[in-house]
Amino acid sequence: MVPHLITALTGPINELEARMLESTPAIERWFRLEWMEHTPPFYTSVDLRNAGFKLAPVGTNLFPAGFDNLTPEMLPLAVQAAMAAIEKICPEAKNLLLIPGPRTDDGSYLMSLQRLVRVFHQAGLNVRLGSLDAAVQSPTTLSTPDGGALVIEPLLRSRGRLGLKHFDPCTILLNHNLSDGVPQVLQRLHEQYLLPPLHAGWTARRKSNHFKSYEEVAKKFAKLLGMDPWLILPMFGQCGQVDVAERSGLDCVRGHVDALLTKIRRKYKEYGIAEKPFVVVKADSGAEGRGQLTVRDTKELDASGSPVGAWIGGDEGRRRLSEVIIQEGVPTHERVNNAVAEPVVVMIDRYVVGGYYRVNAERGIDENLDAPGARFVPLAFAESNQLPRPGEKPGASAPNRFYMYGVIGRLAMLAASYELEATDPDAENNG
Amino acid sequence: MVPHLITALTGPINELEARMLESTPAIERWFRLEWMEHTPPFYTSVDLRNAGFKLAPVGTNLFPAGFDNLTPEMLPLAVQAAMAAIEKICPEAKNLLLIPGPRTDDGSYLMSLQRLVRVFHQAGLNVRLGSLDAAVQSPTTLSTPDGGALVIEPLLRSRGRLGLKHFDPCTILLNHNLSDGVPQVLQRLHEQYLLPPLHAGWTARRKSNHFKSYEEVAKKFAKLLGMDPWLILPMFGQCGQVDVAERSGLDCVRGHVDALLTKIRRKYKEYGIAEKPFVVVKADSGAEGRGQLTVRDTKELDASGSPVGAWIGGDEGRRRLSEVIIQEGVPTHERVNNAVAEPVVVMIDRYVVGGYYRVNAERGIDENLDAPGARFVPLAFAESNQLPRPGEKPGASAPNRFYMYGVIGRLAMLAASYELEATDPDAENNG
Repeated sequence: MVPHLITALTGPINELEARMLESTPAIERWFRLEWMEHTPPFYTSVDLRNAGFKLAPVGTNLFPAGFDNLTPEMLPLAVQAAMAAIEKICPEAKNLLLIPGPRTDDGSYLMSLQRLVRVFHQAGLNVRLGSLDAAVQSPTTLSTPDGGALVIEPLLRSRGRLGLKHFDPCTILLNHNLSDGVPQVLQRLHEQYLLPPLHAGWTARRKSNHFKSYEEVAKKFAKLLGMDPWLILPMFGQCGQVDVAERSGLDCVRGHVDALLTKIRRKYKEYGIAEKPFVVVKADSGAEGRGQLTVRDTKELDASGSPVGAWIGGDEGRRRLSEVIIQEGVPTHERVNNAVAEPVVVMIDRYVVGGYYRVNAERGIDENLDAPGARFVPLAFAESNQLPRPGEKPGASAPNRFYMYGVIGRLAMLAASYELEATDPDAENNG
Repeated sequence: MVPHLITALTGPINELEARMLESTPAIERWFRLEWMEHTPPFYTSVDLRNAGFKLAPVGTNLFPAGFDNLTPEMLPLAVQAAMAAIEKICPEAKNLLLIPGPRTDDGSYLMSLQRLVRVFHQAGLNVRLGSLDAAVQSPTTLSTPDGGALVIEPLLRSRGRLGLKHFDPCTILLNHNLSDGVPQVLQRLHEQYLLPPLHAGWTARRKSNHFKSYEEVAKKFAKLLGMDPWLILPMFGQCGQVDVAERSGLDCVRGHVDALLTKIRRKYKEYGIAEKPFVVVKADSGAEGRGQLTVRDTKELDASGSPVGAWIGGDEGRRRLSEVIIQEGVPTHERVNNAVAEPVVVMIDRYVVGGYYRVNAERGIDENLDAPGARFVPLAFAESNQLPRPGEKPGASAPNRFYMYGVIGRLAMLAASYELEATDPDAENNG
C-alpha cells in the first residue's frame, strides 16, 4: 500500500532534488543557524504541491490534526521531538492540558488526538483533555473508532491559570484553531505557557502574512542553493477590502488575478512548461478547505453563471470576505492509485516526524483536495524511515523525494516562525 | 527474523515492566530533570543482562560500535538525536572529524563507521575520518563489505587544533577507546571540542567508578519507583593492588568473591530464585571481552588446573592486572534461535536510537558473550518502533520489554555522566 511515485516527475524538481541531496550538510546547518535565532512553532503540518516543475507549500497549519495518519514506525520520532520541545518550554512539567478543536464528533480527529495524548504521555507528561465547548459540564467519555476512549473535561479557570479539576498544568497545548474568535477563558493566561500562542489562531492569523514570510525564507534558501526561488515559492497578492455581498473590492481581486496570470505565464515560458496557468482565490483567514476558487482567466470573475459568479452570489457569498488572498495555483502531479494526491509534512518542534498523502479521487489536479471525498494514505512516508541515498537517480527514490518534502515543509515552518514573530502583539518592535 | 522473547521470563522482571509502563510520565520527567543537571555522554551503548528475576547493565561503552546493527527504520531517530547533540555543542559547526578505533581491518566495524558518517552527514555536517595510526601517511581508501568505501586520512596537528588537510573541524568525535594510552596528538586541544573527553577513554576510566555511579543512579531511580534497587543493580567489589604474576592481592579478590557470593545467595533466597550464584572477575579497566572469569565458589580461585588457575598462571596472566573488579554475575535468560543472547541499547545524546541482540551460540548463560563466536541480530529492536502499549500482558509485548531496556540503558548512561563528572581532571571540586 506504499504509493508509487509517478515517473512523470521530471525536469526542474528532479534537479532540485539532486541539488538538495548534495547540499544536505549545508541545508541542515542553515536550519540549525535559523533555529538559533527563531523559535519553531510547537507543532506544524504543511500541505505541499508537487507540480514536477515546482514544489511549493500551499497551506501551513499550526494546529495540526492527522497524527493518526502517521505510521507506528514514525512514533518514536514524534516522542523524541516532543521530549525536545517540552525540555525547552517547561522541563519540570508534570502535566499537559490539551485543548481539542471542535470536531470531537469526527472519529478520525479523535484518533489523531489519541495519538497526541500517547506521544506526550510517552515523552513524560500526564495529559488530560479540556474542552472549550460550554456543553461539556462534566468529564465526558468519547469513543474512538479503534475501541479506545478519550475523556474530555470542563475547563476550570482561576484568575491567572487554566486547568481541570485537580489538574494544574504547566503548559496548555491548543489543538483548536480559534477560527471563531478567542474565548475569554484563554485570555490573559500569564502564569502558564499557552501554545501555540493566541495570535497563531485564525482569529488573528492571515495567510498573506505567512506567505510574505515564506517569500523571505524561500529567497534566503534559494540563495544558499543558488536556485530560482520560484521553484519553491507560490506567488500571491492580497486584497484587504473585499465585500462580496456588496461586490466591492472586486477590482483589486481582478487586478491581482490578471497580474499573477501574466507572471505565471512568463515563468512557464521561461521553463518551457506546457500547462495552463491558474490562480486560487481564497479567504485570507481560516483553515483550508472552504471557499476556494480556481481561476484560469480574468473573464471568469465577471461571467454570471460561471462557478465564480455562483461563488460570489451563492452559498459562499454569505461569508462577507473582507480579506482575500490570490495565489499562484500549483497543480499536483502526484497520484495514489490514480487519485490526485498531495503530500502533508508533519513536524513537532523543529523536527519532521512523518507525513502522509491527502488523496481525493473526486478532485482535479488544480483543485483543493481538502474537501469532501478526501482520504489519507498513512503509509506514504513509511519508506522515508530510511535515510536519503545520495547517488540514486533523481525522482526514483522515495527517501530522497521525502527528504526534499521535509526540507520544504521545514521552510514553511520557519516562515510560520517569522510570521508569528512579526505579528506578535506583545513584541516590542513590531513592524 | 525478529527474535521471539522467551516466555520463560516471569516473576520480578514482569512486575518491574508493568511498574515502569504505568510510571512512564514520572520516569521520563525524572530523566528530564537529571539531564538538566548532568550532561549525557555524546554516545553510549550499554550491554544488558535479563535474568528474568533481575535486569542489569553489565558494561557501558562510551565509544560504541555496532551502529551497523541498527535497522534502517531506526536511522531517522539517530539523525534527530545527532542534530540535538550538535546543536548543544557547536551549532555553527560545518565539519566533524571522526577518529576511528584500531579495528579498521574489521568489515563490521567499517560498516558501523559508515553508518556514523551517514548519520552525522544527514544531521548537517561534513564528516571526514582521521587516523591515529601512524602508518596512515596519505588518504587511504578502505572498502566496506557492502561495496562502499571509506577514506581515512592522516591527522594534522597545529599548536592548538587538530584537523586534516584542508579540513578544520569544530568538533572531534572519538570512536577509539584509548585503551593503550592517550596519544600526544589528542592532548591539549583547548580550541576544539573533543568528544567523548579523554578521561572517558580506558586509559583513565575504571569500571568500579562507573558502577559506583550506577549504584547511586539505580538507588535514586528505585526510590522513585518504590522498588528494590537490587532488581536493576549488579553488586560489586574492587581490588586495587592485584599482581597476578606475583600472586599478590589475591586475598582481596578472594574476600570480595566470598562476600558477594554470600550476598547474592541471600538475595536469591529472599526472591525464591533457584539458581546457583556466580561472580565475574575482570580487569577494572578496558573494554569487555577479555580476561573475564566466572567464579561460583571461592575454592575455584585456589585450585590449580581449574580455569581460574589457568587464568592466573596462563595466557591472561601475562597482563599484570593491577586493578580488578569483582561483580555479581547476572545470567542471561534470553535466547535468539536457541543461542544465548543479551540486549545492547544504543544511545546518541540522551536518546535511545536503537538496539540489537548480541548472540553467542558457543557460550553459556553465565559467560561473557562478547567473545569469539558472537554475532548480532540487528532486527531485534525493529518492533520497538512502536510505542509501548500499556495494558498488554507483562513480558508478552516486545515494545514494552524494549521500553524497559531503554530505561535501564539510560540509567547506565546517566551513571556514565555522573562518573565522567566525578573523574573530570579539569573539574574544580573533584571528589
